[in-house]
Amino acid sequence: MQQPSSSGESGTLPRVGILGGGQLGRMLLQAAANYPVETFVMENDSECPAAHLCHHFTKGDITDFQAVYNFGKGLDAITIEIEHVNLEALEKLEAEGVRIYPKPPVLKTIKNKILQKQYYQQHQIPASGFIITNNRAELEKQEGFLPAVHKIGEGGYDGRGVQLLKKKDDLALGFDAPAVLEKMIPIDKEIAQMIAINEKGETALYPPVEMLFNPDLNLLDYQLCPAELSTQTLYVVEAIALTVVRNFKSPGIFAVEMFIDKKGNVLVNETAPRVHNSGHHTIEAHYSSQFDMLWRIMLGYPLGNTDAILPSIMVNIIGAPGHTGEVKYEGLEETLKIENAFVHLYGKKHTKPGRKMGHVTIISKEKQELLHQSNKVKRTLLPRT
Amino acid sequence: MQQPSSSGESGTLPRVGILGGGQLGRMLLQAAANYPVETFVMENDSECPAAHLCHHFTKGDITDFQAVYNFGKGLDAITIEIEHVNLEALEKLEAEGVRIYPKPPVLKTIKNKILQKQYYQQHQIPASGFIITNNRAELEKQEGFLPAVHKIGEGGYDGRGVQLLKKKDDLALGFDAPAVLEKMIPIDKEIAQMIAINEKGETALYPPVEMLFNPDLNLLDYQLCPAELSTQTLYVVEAIALTVVRNFKSPGIFAVEMFIDKKGNVLVNETAPRVHNSGHHTIEAHYSSQFDMLWRIMLGYPLGNTDAILPSIMVNIIGAPGHTGEVKYEGLEETLKIENAFVHLYGKKHTKPGRKMGHVTIISKEKQELLHQSNKVKRTLLPRT
Repeated sequence: MQQPSSSGESGTLPRVGILGGGQLGRMLLQAAANYPVETFVMENDSECPAAHLCHHFTKGDITDFQAVYNFGKGLDAITIEIEHVNLEALEKLEAEGVRIYPKPPVLKTIKNKILQKQYYQQHQIPASGFIITNNRAELEKQEGFLPAVHKIGEGGYDGRGVQLLKKKDDLALGFDAPAVLEKMIPIDKEIAQMIAINEKGETALYPPVEMLFNPDLNLLDYQLCPAELSTQTLYVVEAIALTVVRNFKSPGIFAVEMFIDKKGNVLVNETAPRVHNSGHHTIEAHYSSQFDMLWRIMLGYPLGNTDAILPSIMVNIIGAPGHTGEVKYEGLEETLKIENAFVHLYGKKHTKPGRKMGHVTIISKEKQELLHQSNKVKRTLLPRT
Repeated sequence: MQQPSSSGESGTLPRVGILGGGQLGRMLLQAAANYPVETFVMENDSECPAAHLCHHFTKGDITDFQAVYNFGKGLDAITIEIEHVNLEALEKLEAEGVRIYPKPPVLKTIKNKILQKQYYQQHQIPASGFIITNNRAELEKQEGFLPAVHKIGEGGYDGRGVQLLKKKDDLALGFDAPAVLEKMIPIDKEIAQMIAINEKGETALYPPVEMLFNPDLNLLDYQLCPAELSTQTLYVVEAIALTVVRNFKSPGIFAVEMFIDKKGNVLVNETAPRVHNSGHHTIEAHYSSQFDMLWRIMLGYPLGNTDAILPSIMVNIIGAPGHTGEVKYEGLEETLKIENAFVHLYGKKHTKPGRKMGHVTIISKEKQELLHQSNKVKRTLLPRT
């Protein structure tokens, strides 16, 4: 395994590429400008949020073998902002000496929900019970397993490819493709644990965050940091996250999403092997943000400090229902007057219902203040047409 | 006076240009990526720190009329990261409807140290006594005014164009060009007050910072925020800064550098009508950074919150003496291990003695901790070849 060479050791800048040019790439590149690094982005849309913030932008399809391979050869390292990238090209690039964050086998496991569930099972990581269904005919036989959540094996994203199946009639809504049927569990809390691991295997845990979802769109509405957990539960959460990432044997940054059930059991839901929505608050509320942390790992620097400077709430700014077209931000002025709010708009020209258009982080030592201001932001700042 | 139209009001992105592509432009562009704005940079060096972070980079001479005019027409607004830009082009662009931050008359006053001193005099703003010397012959007659500081009228920057004249023999070191000879005053403290003013004339004052200079290079070594001042002195400092910027009748952000003499008198030294070295700590230590604040002003948003999240010290990382060439950062790894330090390296490929290569901000509520860590950074992180 080749080690990253810190730019402290050589006169030329390390060359690092990002597959995908959305808001995660945008915020990665904002953080990159604190370090000596030459940046590359590939994305199909040359007006994407990250396109103008890198040294070298390539318009191309991140799921295409030749496009990804051509983009990657000659780079020192590559990371991703979405799992749906061409894996074979990354495997070939890795074999030729390009460092990939996360390593291709991790991507392979995670981008397929069946393999991901099997990974948790294999490593005795607690997760909800599941059955693999290869087609709708197999699914139809599983009435006895309901209520359950049906997740398509490949291609799901941001709530697409997930179907809640409560009763027999719902089985027709399931996917006629390889999928996992996960036992529905009575959820008390939904949390996420961001965790970083470097080439040496050293790890750094952020405080877990507690989340609330929009039940219609299955999109994150807002999240509190730190999550309110008993010390005992916190230790379990951290131990699970460590087990998840150590067994991957790959440097990188990971968001381990977990459920806490009504009995206090902690179960892994899903893992994202990259910077993630549930780490956005770390930009202002923590010493080393998730974006800063990934650059430290890729550039061979020491891991950053994951401590919170202050508690925080992060609110996603999501395209309002019924509005599709050129965006106007209703309530932006009022939001920008909130004294402890940090506004991030991703520069997307068009809004549509459910599209992530930005986020706002509130910091305060008072939880009531966090709740008050985040509710205000959620009511006030509306991407419309 | 045309008002900026917030992007909340229109579907197309406001187009904003920056003259100069150094570290100030770089940090402005990092902050710009939180807002919907299309960015433009002009600078002679296409590998400058800001070149890759804007939507549209133009290689060109910011002191050339035609280059600046061509760059600026069609933009909604322009700001600067250095005063030495072509003023006539900005005047023409302003007449044609481009908003300029700061307005050209302010630049005209500030870029000439003689006009700047006269401005303070005219508005009864306390500053050290001065004599205008148009050439060395005039200077030679001023032995009685020594000890004094001779500052060239136009063209000085970062310590160039400033000469300390203690005794008669030193007069030969003075400038044979229009200049001001400023009475040397016994300085107790050197401080800087960042202040923002928007189109409506609303102002926002950051806490003043206290500075220590490198006596050899006249470059800022490190600065403490907030400055340790009596309440009475603080009020005087704020009142002076308000007088300086209100009389300019221009929106923008300003750094008003002041001396406090041994008797506690506050005297203005110089004003920078732009984002400034003495505001770098605001990126992490304050709610709205100086860079965020300028975007708010240019985009017609409300002024940001200038409060400190925590006290801070900022250390400039300056090219080590005797090292000219491709840079290596000695001590970078050790610096990155400091848990409350934020490292900013500007991505300059070459170092030379005295060149600003980066800065590090430390935050802590304990002053001893700030001093301890900043001294450690200053000893540890060395740009060498």
